[in-house]
Formats: sequence, structure tokens, C-alpha cells
Amino acid sequence: MDNKAFQDHYPEDYSQCYGCGRLNPNGLQIKSYWDGDETVAAFTPRPYHMAMPGFVYGGLIASLIDCHSTGSAAAAAYRADGRQMDTEPALRFVTASLKVDYLRPTPLGVRLELRGRIKEIKGRKVVVETTLSADGRVCARGEVVAVQLPEKMRTAGV
Amino acid sequence: MDNKAFQDHYPEDYSQCYGCGRLNPNGLQIKSYWDGDETVAAFTPRPYHMAMPGFVYGGLIASLIDCHSTGSAAAAAYRADGRQMDTEPALRFVTASLKVDYLRPTPLGVRLELRGRIKEIKGRKVVVETTLSADGRVCARGEVVAVQLPEKMRTAGV
Repeated sequence: MDNKAFQDHYPEDYSQCYGCGRLNPNGLQIKSYWDGDETVAAFTPRPYHMAMPGFVYGGLIASLIDCHSTGSAAAAAYRADGRQMDTEPALRFVTASLKVDYLRPTPLGVRLELRGRIKEIKGRKVVVETTLSADGRVCARGEVVAVQLPEKMRTAGV
Repeated sequence: MDNKAFQDHYPEDYSQCYGCGRLNPNGLQIKSYWDGDETVAAFTPRPYHMAMPGFVYGGLIASLIDCHSTGSAAAAAYRADGRQMDTEPALRFVTASLKVDYLRPTPLGVRLELRGRIKEIKGRKVVVETTLSADGRVCARGEVVAVQLPEKMRTAGV
């Protein structure tokens, strides 16, 4: 059992992300973990993350699904390679496309659970399906197509 | 020419949104306007809205596209009714689905332009296509299916 989150294994130059970077003090600092073959993360929105009083802002929901899914893509790629996440070369994924279906209003003030499922790994592409639930009910369902960032782009700062 | 942004016409109970509410001091406060048959908004990300150094966070891009598109949907519905946006009953749209294709990395430190096009108005549903550009190049392309919030949900605080 790895007690460190996926994102805590990212190299420093990948750890500034507003959504999940451990080195971004203004950001959301999402933390994702394996739970069997699924990935999980929890996040409690701040009171100001509202769409309207009592309900969570859809852009935050999209952001949580995005970062949890790209983190899940990286973890799945390491697992497929039979490697630990702290080994080199670092595998880091960016979002090629993001789709979110908002199924019902998401209540504000409770802990949200994100749960990812690896739908496909093919070459440098990983497709992740992630649900967002509140109080055990799925409020949004997302699909992210994540692509591996070339190592040369990483070192170029891209 | 209406010098007020779409979002500045929203009633107070719709003006708390993290993305576009004029009454949310912690939020992004996006402002959208007509430009002929298209809608436009501009936003300059804060330095901490990064994915990695030099590039904008994808969740912020999704958030900007989301709020600009739902605002555009409301404006289009008023226009289709031949009504001004400050007339009652208020028309407010929420996101049923959001799709974003990230075409290239979005540079941080420049003003981003959002440009929306009304693709379909049918009953209570409006479909909006929105591009996000930096330095004149389209970096992301989104499609939002927005649905009109029932008046009774509004008064119930939903």
C-alpha cells in the first residue's frame, strides 16, 4: 500500500498545477490514490465554490475530474509498466479532451468523492472515466482523454 | 449597445457563482457581451492559475468556457424572446454537459479571449460553442449544453 498520493510523486516541475500541485499554495491540492483497480480522491469545496447558494460550481467539478483523471492516467501507466511512481523517467499526462455530464445539482458543504476507472490504455493515451459523488449519489460523470507529455517537452518547461 | 455584461443583469440570487457572479468576491467574475451574433469575454488568468510553469490550468479553461457559455445561452434566450436581459421573468441557464478539446497549450500571462456561437435553441435547451484564444490562436474549443432553470427551482434556492 502506497500512502503517498499520485500527485506527491510528481517531480517538482510538474507540481505547480492549480488543481493538484503540492507546491501551488493557492491551488486545490487534490490527492488521488489507488483503491483496487479504481482510483479515489476526496475534496471538500470551500464555501465560495458555489454555483448558487447551496450548490457546487460546475467549473470546480470539471477541475476535480480533470486532475483526478490525469493523475489516474499517470498511475495506470506506471502500473502497466510494472513500475513504482517514484521511478524515472517520470510519466506525466495532460488533458486532450474533457467531457462532463452534470446529472444533478451537487450539494455544497459536504465531502465529495471522485472515483476513476481506467477505460483504455493505448500507446501514449489513457482514457479515464471519473464519477463525482456527494452523500453516496453520483452527481457528475466525466471522461478524460489524457496523453503522455513527451519528456523533451517537460524539460523545455511545457 | 448594452454596456452591461450579461452577468450584470442576473438577479442577486444568481450572482454568487464562483465563475461569473458579480457578488462572489473570491470568484473569477467573468463578463460576457454580444459582438454581433457572437458573444465575447476576456480574462487574464492569475499567475497561480498554471498547469505547469508558463501554461494555463485546463480546469480554469473549462470554467471560463462553462460560464461564458451559460451566460451566452441566457442572452440568446432573451434575444430569441425579443426581450431585454433586465426584464422578468429572469432566464438563467445551468450546464447539462460540457465538452472541452484542448488543442494546444495555453500560454500564461496574456489576456485570453472567449468567443461563443449559438449553435441551437430548442425549447429550454441552448447549445453554445465557445473557443478560447490566446494571441489570436485558438487553444481550446468547447461545447456546452445549457438548460433553463425552472423558475420554481430558482425560488427554492436551487
